Amino acid sequence: MFNKRVKVKELLAAEQTGHEVTVMGWVRTFRNNQFIALNDGSTNTNLQVVAELGKFEESLLKRITAGASLMVRGEVVSSLGKGQKIEVKAKLIEILGDSDAEKFPLQLKNRPSLEYLREIAHLRFRTNTFGSVFRIRHALAYAVHKFFNDKGFIYLNTPIITASDAEGAGELFRVTTLPLNNAPQREDGSVDFREDFFGRAANLTVSGQLEAELGAMALSEVYTFGPTFRAENSNTARHLAEFWMIEPEMAFYDLEDNMNLAEEFIKYIIRYAMDNNKDDLEFLGQRLEDEEKQKPQAERSEMGLMEKLDLVVSNNFQRITYTEAINILLDSAAYKKKKFKYDVNWGMDMQSEHERYLVEKHFKKPVIVTGYPKAIKAFYMRQNEDGNTVAAMDILAPGIGEIVGGSQREERLEMLEQRMKEMKIPVEEMWWYLDTRRFGTVPHAGFGLGFERMVQFVTGMTNIRDVIAFPRTPKSAEF
Amino acid sequence: MFNKRVKVKELLAAEQTGHEVTVMGWVRTFRNNQFIALNDGSTNTNLQVVAELGKFEESLLKRITAGASLMVRGEVVSSLGKGQKIEVKAKLIEILGDSDAEKFPLQLKNRPSLEYLREIAHLRFRTNTFGSVFRIRHALAYAVHKFFNDKGFIYLNTPIITASDAEGAGELFRVTTLPLNNAPQREDGSVDFREDFFGRAANLTVSGQLEAELGAMALSEVYTFGPTFRAENSNTARHLAEFWMIEPEMAFYDLEDNMNLAEEFIKYIIRYAMDNNKDDLEFLGQRLEDEEKQKPQAERSEMGLMEKLDLVVSNNFQRITYTEAINILLDSAAYKKKKFKYDVNWGMDMQSEHERYLVEKHFKKPVIVTGYPKAIKAFYMRQNEDGNTVAAMDILAPGIGEIVGGSQREERLEMLEQRMKEMKIPVEEMWWYLDTRRFGTVPHAGFGLGFERMVQFVTGMTNIRDVIAFPRTPKSAEF
Repeated sequence: MFNKRVKVKELLAAEQTGHEVTVMGWVRTFRNNQFIALNDGSTNTNLQVVAELGKFEESLLKRITAGASLMVRGEVVSSLGKGQKIEVKAKLIEILGDSDAEKFPLQLKNRPSLEYLREIAHLRFRTNTFGSVFRIRHALAYAVHKFFNDKGFIYLNTPIITASDAEGAGELFRVTTLPLNNAPQREDGSVDFREDFFGRAANLTVSGQLEAELGAMALSEVYTFGPTFRAENSNTARHLAEFWMIEPEMAFYDLEDNMNLAEEFIKYIIRYAMDNNKDDLEFLGQRLEDEEKQKPQAERSEMGLMEKLDLVVSNNFQRITYTEAINILLDSAAYKKKKFKYDVNWGMDMQSEHERYLVEKHFKKPVIVTGYPKAIKAFYMRQNEDGNTVAAMDILAPGIGEIVGGSQREERLEMLEQRMKEMKIPVEEMWWYLDTRRFGTVPHAGFGLGFERMVQFVTGMTNIRDVIAFPRTPKSAEF
Repeated sequence: MFNKRVKVKELLAAEQTGHEVTVMGWVRTFRNNQFIALNDGSTNTNLQVVAELGKFEESLLKRITAGASLMVRGEVVSSLGKGQKIEVKAKLIEILGDSDAEKFPLQLKNRPSLEYLREIAHLRFRTNTFGSVFRIRHALAYAVHKFFNDKGFIYLNTPIITASDAEGAGELFRVTTLPLNNAPQREDGSVDFREDFFGRAANLTVSGQLEAELGAMALSEVYTFGPTFRAENSNTARHLAEFWMIEPEMAFYDLEDNMNLAEEFIKYIIRYAMDNNKDDLEFLGQRLEDEEKQKPQAERSEMGLMEKLDLVVSNNFQRITYTEAINILLDSAAYKKKKFKYDVNWGMDMQSEHERYLVEKHFKKPVIVTGYPKAIKAFYMRQNEDGNTVAAMDILAPGIGEIVGGSQREERLEMLEQRMKEMKIPVEEMWWYLDTRRFGTVPHAGFGLGFERMVQFVTGMTNIRDVIAFPRTPKSAEF
C-alpha cells in the first residue's frame, strides 16, 4: 500500500522528469512558504518539493514544520536550484505526522552540538551527520560479511554469556537472576552461584576468540561479528562498555598469512565504503574540516578524511618488529627532545603517542608491528624461538592508533599449558580449549577488530559515542 | 605461507587432474592402511588421499588416526572409488597434530548421539551433521544481510544492555558490577542501583524493536540482527536463554507491506540456502529421514526436508484473520473429535497444535494470521477500528509453528499512551519512544524472526541446541 513510494535516493539518481511520483519523508526545512527540503533517510541529499504559492491551504502550510512527516504526490520536473537536477512539483501534500516547532528538540538551524545530540540519540538519526555515520556503519558491516563470505569463511555466533574469564581482559559484567539484596551464600559468605540461572557464575563476554578457535579447528576459517563488553570505569571518547568486535580465526595460517588477510580485509571494507558511500564521506570530510578549523593550528590534523582513507587503501602496510619500533622511537628527535609523555624502553606497552609517531610521522602509512614481548601479551599467543617474544601483530592506523590486534596462536599443547600456568590461567576449566591442542592441533591464527574504532576511522568522528546508535558508558544506559 | 593450501571444496569442484596440490585437514577415517578420508570443513565431502602401500614409514601410518591433522602434498588423479571423481595420490604426508585414538572423544564409527555431541560441542563441528548445520547457518545469516542490503535497509546495532523492560516479555537477566553478597541498599532494603555501573538497574535485552523504531523514524528502513535473551527456566528443545533475532522495522509500511516483505524475505533466505548449500541440505535431509525411521509410524513427519522447503518457497502464503483461523479450528474434525489438547475459543492464544493443524492439515502451506485480539498482544501494536483486535501478523510454518511475529505499530500518540496506561507500561520512562509519535510520526511496521528457529526449519534439526554453536540453557553455560 504505502510501498508505492519512491525513495529519494532512487529518484535523484534516476534524474528522469515528467512522471508522477509519491514520496514520503521528514521536513528538514521549509523556505519562503514554498520550498520543502524533504529527507527520507536513504541519502543525505534532501529532495526539494515545491508547493506553489496559492495552491495549498494556509492551514496546511502552517503544519509543514521541521520534523513533520509528509506524503507528497507530484510531478518530477527539472530544477533551477543549484546542486539539484530535479525537484517535485507537489499536487497533493498530506501531513502524516505533525511536529510542534516550539517543542521539537532538534532545531537544525541552531547547529546542535554533538554533545547535545547524544542526549537526544533517538532523534539524532535525523541529522545529516548521523544519517551519514549510520549509513557508513551499515556499509562497513555489510562489507565485513561480504569479504568473509566470498572467501568461504563461516560466520560463527560465539556466546555472549560465558562462564569463563580466560582472556582476563579487564573488568567483567556479571549476568545473574539472583536477587541482589538476598543472594544465597555459602558458609564462607561467598555467593552460592549453584543457585544462579546457569548453576555457576556467568559474565558478559569480552571476546569470542577462544570459542572461534574451536570452530576454526573443524571448519578451517570462521569469523565472529558480535557485541563484546568491558565494565571499565573509563569515561573517555575512546571507550564503550558495549561495543562490536569482528574476530576471524583461521586454521592453517601462520603470522604472515594473518597479516596478509588483515591488510586485505581493512583495505576491502574501507574501499567498499568509498565506493558505495561517496556522498556521505564527502559530507563527513567537510564536517571534519570545519571541526578542525575550530582547533588551534598546532592541534589540527595534517590530513583530510579522504586523504587518510586513501593513504590506507593505496599503500602497502609497513611491517616491522616491536624491537625495530622501539629502536625507531629511541632514535627519534621526539624522544631526544623529550616530547613523549611516556618513556621508551624495550618491554613497554607502546602508548598511543608512540604508535601515532610511527604511523603519522615516521612511516606515513599504516604499520604492522610484530614480535611483542610475551610479558605484555595474552597467554594464547605463540611463543617465538627467542623465548622472549610472541607471534603477535598489532596494526596501527593514522589518527587512531591500534585498530587490529592479532597473533598466531600457540598450537603446541605443552607450551600452552606451561604459559597458562605461568599466567595463572585455570587450566582445568579450559579443558575444552586444550582439547583442540590434544586432538589434531594445527597452526592457526586470528585477529580482532573493534568495529566502532573502524567506523570512527572511516567517518572521522572523534568520539566513539557518535558511531554507535545508543552508547553504553559509565552511568549511562538511556534508550 | 600455509595459505598455499587448496581447499577440498575447490579441489573437488574443479575436477582437474594431473597437477600437484597441498591439502590440509583432519582425518575422518583411515581404511586398509591406505585410504585417508580428509576433511577441512569447507564441505561435507571428504577428500580421498591415497597413501600407496609401502611408500610411507609404518611409524607415520600409525599416527594417521581419526582426528589427527595432516598436511598432504600429492598429485590429483582420477578416482576409481564411487562417489568421487578425483583423489590425491600422496607424495608427502606430514602430521600436523596427533590424535590419540584411545582418548579422542569423537569416535565417529560409534555414531555418537546428538545428546552426547552437545557435551563435546567444541568438537562436534568435526561431524558431517554439524559441519552442514553451521555452513547452512552461515548461508542463512549472509542471506539476511544481503536481502536487506540490496533493498537499501540500514543494519542497526541496537543495545544489548538496556535499562528498559518495555516489552515485558518474560524474565530478564540482570547485568551488574555490584557485589552480589554486599550490594548497597536503600533504607527500605531495596538495592541501590545508583551505585551500579550504569547508575540504574540494567538488563539484557529481550528485543531491539523499540530502538529499531527510533532508527526507522529517520532512516526509513532498518534491521537488527543480534543476540537477545530470556531468563526463562524452560528446559525444552525449543528454548534458549541466548538466541539471535532479526528485527526489520520500516517507516511508511502498513500491515500488508509488512506481510509482503516478510514473505519475500523468508522465501529469499531459504532459496539462498537451497542454491548455495545443496550438498549440506541433502545430507541433512537423509539424516532426518533416518531419524524419522526410528519413530513409530504415527509420529513420523509426512514430508521430507526438501519437500518442506519447497512448500515454503513455491507457494503464496495463505493469509487469514485470527477470527477465520478460530472458525476453521472450530469446524475441524480434530476439534469435534476432541483431538486437541487445548480448547479452542475466540480470544485464546493459539497453541502449537492449532498452528500446526492450520498449516499442515488444513492449508498445507505457510499461513499468515492477522488481526489478533489486542488482549494477547503487545502494547505497541496498532489498534484496529473494531476496538478488539490489533494489526498483528504471525507467520506459521510447517513443522515448527510460529516463525515470525510482527505488526503495524501504533503511530497515533493518544492511542499509544492510552494503551500503555491500560497495560501498566511506564509512560514516563519511555519518553524517547513516545517522542517519535510526537514529532513527525509515520505509519510503520516491522517483524521479528528468531534466527535459530529458522535454522532449525531449514536444517531439520529438532532440538534448538543443535543449531547454535554453544547453547545457553538453565544450568548450562559450558565453553
